[in-house]
Amino acid sequence: MPGPAPEPSPDSAPAPDGMGNRASGRRPFTRSRSHFADRVTADGRDGWPVAAGRYRLVASRACPWASRAVISRRLLGLEDALSLALVDPLQDDRSWRFTLDPDGRDPVLGIRFLSEAYDARETGYPGGVSVPALVDVPSGKLVTNDFQQLTLDFATEWTALHRPGAPDLYPEARRAEIDEVMADVYRDVNNGVYRAGFATDQDAYDAAFGPLFDRLDRLADRLSDRRYLVGDTLTEADIRLFTTLVRFDPVYHGHFKCNRFKLAEDPVLWAYAKDLFQTPGFGDTVDFHHIKQHYYRVHTGINPTGIVPLGPDLSGWLTPHHREELGGRPFGDGTPPGPVRPGEEVPPSGCP
Amino acid sequence: MPGPAPEPSPDSAPAPDGMGNRASGRRPFTRSRSHFADRVTADGRDGWPVAAGRYRLVASRACPWASRAVISRRLLGLEDALSLALVDPLQDDRSWRFTLDPDGRDPVLGIRFLSEAYDARETGYPGGVSVPALVDVPSGKLVTNDFQQLTLDFATEWTALHRPGAPDLYPEARRAEIDEVMADVYRDVNNGVYRAGFATDQDAYDAAFGPLFDRLDRLADRLSDRRYLVGDTLTEADIRLFTTLVRFDPVYHGHFKCNRFKLAEDPVLWAYAKDLFQTPGFGDTVDFHHIKQHYYRVHTGINPTGIVPLGPDLSGWLTPHHREELGGRPFGDGTPPGPVRPGEEVPPSGCP
Repeated sequence: MPGPAPEPSPDSAPAPDGMGNRASGRRPFTRSRSHFADRVTADGRDGWPVAAGRYRLVASRACPWASRAVISRRLLGLEDALSLALVDPLQDDRSWRFTLDPDGRDPVLGIRFLSEAYDARETGYPGGVSVPALVDVPSGKLVTNDFQQLTLDFATEWTALHRPGAPDLYPEARRAEIDEVMADVYRDVNNGVYRAGFATDQDAYDAAFGPLFDRLDRLADRLSDRRYLVGDTLTEADIRLFTTLVRFDPVYHGHFKCNRFKLAEDPVLWAYAKDLFQTPGFGDTVDFHHIKQHYYRVHTGINPTGIVPLGPDLSGWLTPHHREELGGRPFGDGTPPGPVRPGEEVPPSGCP
Repeated sequence: MPGPAPEPSPDSAPAPDGMGNRASGRRPFTRSRSHFADRVTADGRDGWPVAAGRYRLVASRACPWASRAVISRRLLGLEDALSLALVDPLQDDRSWRFTLDPDGRDPVLGIRFLSEAYDARETGYPGGVSVPALVDVPSGKLVTNDFQQLTLDFATEWTALHRPGAPDLYPEARRAEIDEVMADVYRDVNNGVYRAGFATDQDAYDAAFGPLFDRLDRLADRLSDRRYLVGDTLTEADIRLFTTLVRFDPVYHGHFKCNRFKLAEDPVLWAYAKDLFQTPGFGDTVDFHHIKQHYYRVHTGINPTGIVPLGPDLSGWLTPHHREELGGRPFGDGTPPGPVRPGEEVPPSGCP
């Protein structure tokens, strides 16, 4: 999660929420670019070749950016090749930490804070610590925190390690269209909710609100007669929209004041989101408890009491969506992923 | 509005939001009892006889407690007998003020702050300044700020000044039932939203949330086959539930974290609230702009940025409710009130 609290801070200060966020005085919120942008590729041209068991994915189930990678890993069946470390939804002043693990240490990397992998890579790095992070297990060094590139590489560079039946989440013939959709969704929706929520004045908030809901209206139009965003199969574009939509009613609607309507009030987007939620690899990665704890307790600048709302009622996520009537082939020529890997199940409290 | 911000304050300090609210350290939120509880009656036994033109009702359109009196005055046709002063939705450190009026003075009472009428009544009164307030025009003294009794007296003591066709809002034969319903609604709903929103810790919030939504569920059951709460006509009980319901989605759902569901998601309560909204005397008194400005800008303890959400979409308030199919006689043997008095119209910006 490119970064915690939306407190005003000098522009040069670490991103405040471990998700690449910074709110700087009166200036609009901007998202930090990933500092570590090495790529793990099939040919290893950056010095990091794809290899089973070599890397560890560090993620937070609270974070929409990290959740992309968690979903992608499930859909592609990379679980055996790429292990998963999950951080506490609550950062402290040293940022993301492994306090969910015995003795507060990641059992593979042996570290207590994700920042230790950053330090191993670059001494004195002054930037923020963010998830998702890919860490080289032998050296303990961070390889990349580039959330925009990471899942594209999972889809296109890690193919040798995909499960049989893995879907093509970034099909070559559709990339221009996928990229265009994702750019709009990133600007107005994925990042738009943060620009609204971390606004420090009314004008900045207003400037984010309109484009966000206008985009959602356009996405609802697009999705009214097609099951997925691009083509008739699941792609990276759906993953990226889903991770924002699943957080919309529990967090963004109230906490970030994105309240023209609830997701559950939009028939098309709600059905689309439920369809994905009920697809293996999506809903089975979602921990609503982590999501709510993180946002409401970490962002003390907009929720000083730290009180976590008891709502919304989440039972609707498992109700019929009827999107199968639109046709579509979720996994194209492939198949759905199998059950969640033992030990990686979301605890029942995190489910609707 | 019995009081501004939900900042912790000593128990003996003035109620902090002009609505009788106080949040005291770790103790649960409690609502102050009205200090000035004189009654204006037909026989004048407290020294304040009902008389046309003698009293001035000071209200805020933001405030649910004051809005009861504004609605009641409209339904009963007391406009000619009892003039209305509207305060700015934003208090300052001297509480409610007449900054909406020319030169910032109420044109009838000649005062800039409602506190001046309190001071005229009792020198050095240490409590909070709240609306609704009934002020004796000749002396400039506050008569009562007892929001619980005021509208009952409008209904039962001010009858000589009612318009022809005024409904009986507190019919003698139904009082026991009305009182019982109102007691439940007050505890769990009217005041329940404040106990949730002004909670200073998770336990206090949790303790308010359950009873609030359980009560709403029970009210939805009750209203599923009857048009009004008691009998088949509008009563004081409907007025008191309405003033909370109309604020639910714009304010309480997000700002006060009352978010199990939106009002608009509950078919019965939403239709019931729309029915009342569309009844003369209800929706024509509602100023959503004042409501949102007040809550989001005054309560800096729970909304430090003071940013006012642009949502929700309010257009649904004017859509068909179909409650007339349940029968009922809104005004009993009476008639609806006529148009809003010139000069008392809610500005268009405040309407859906």
